[in-house]
Amino acid sequence: MAPLTTPKSGDALFASVERVNAELFTLTYGAIVRQLLTDLEEVEEVNKQLDQMGYNIGTRLVDEFLAKSNVSNCVDFKETADTIAKLGFKMFLGVTATVTNWDAEGTTCSFVLEDNPLVDFVELPDTCQGLQYCNVLSGVIRGALEMVRLLSLPPFIIFSSCQAVEG
Amino acid sequence: MAPLTTPKSGDALFASVERVNAELFTLTYGAIVRQLLTDLEEVEEVNKQLDQMGYNIGTRLVDEFLAKSNVSNCVDFKETADTIAKLGFKMFLGVTATVTNWDAEGTTCSFVLEDNPLVDFVELPDTCQGLQYCNVLSGVIRGALEMVRLLSLPPFIIFSSCQAVEG
Repeated sequence: MAPLTTPKSGDALFASVERVNAELFTLTYGAIVRQLLTDLEEVEEVNKQLDQMGYNIGTRLVDEFLAKSNVSNCVDFKETADTIAKLGFKMFLGVTATVTNWDAEGTTCSFVLEDNPLVDFVELPDTCQGLQYCNVLSGVIRGALEMVRLLSLPPFIIFSSCQAVEG
Repeated sequence: MAPLTTPKSGDALFASVERVNAELFTLTYGAIVRQLLTDLEEVEEVNKQLDQMGYNIGTRLVDEFLAKSNVSNCVDFKETADTIAKLGFKMFLGVTATVTNWDAEGTTCSFVLEDNPLVDFVELPDTCQGLQYCNVLSGVIRGALEMVRLLSLPPFIIFSSCQAVEG
């Protein structure tokens, strides 16, 4: 059965939402990471906290995504990943991601961002080895997928990794 | 002497910058405030930290503002305030502010945001009395003005208050 509505393109989606300056967002995110490094000290704890913040954000953002994207249920995890990469990232960050590094079972993959607004102007000192600077993104995806599963997707899939690398 | 270039309109400025989804920004900012409340406990300390974060952000953002806005030196504080309200807020948050509450000496004023992306979906519990939720904005302005003074403005003006109220 054909879907009742046609999903919007990523460009149309991004054009349909309220936006703020990307540099302001980038610097604000940098301020969070710096604050967490100061408060928590351990890089591993910072990674966890960024993921948790992202999770909370993702559980909220998914509503806007579903309301505006006209996306209906994805048939499998590959389609889900593709939707996140082409529509989800575009709608919120204004860029698209490439899905790669699939494992043999098709249950884990990586999103690679060639142009990642989160890392503009970012230089990490050596003391930050192991810091997953963009870990908030993994958390957002985790939170969003968990909400979707509650609403409509029976098979729940865990993202084991989400890498954001600099172009 | 007429300026060599004409300042851009707020709309043109906002259209000229890279942007991200406003809801993502709003939720990310909310995550910062929540984190600070957990870590610092005292509302007064959170206010200070938000201002400091904003200050650091403002010292960076002012470069983008000067590079893109074609604004030349403001002749006085009133013109400075008006430029921030009509061009600065527009360029970074996509909204304009109203400048009001001038004191007799013309050295302090308030920016009132009728439509403030930072406070969308925000509900503060009673335990947050005294929290200046949007205090990052005061800090941004303070940081930006201090940088401008270093570059070109001899008389430095201290902002004694910057209120952001819900419409």
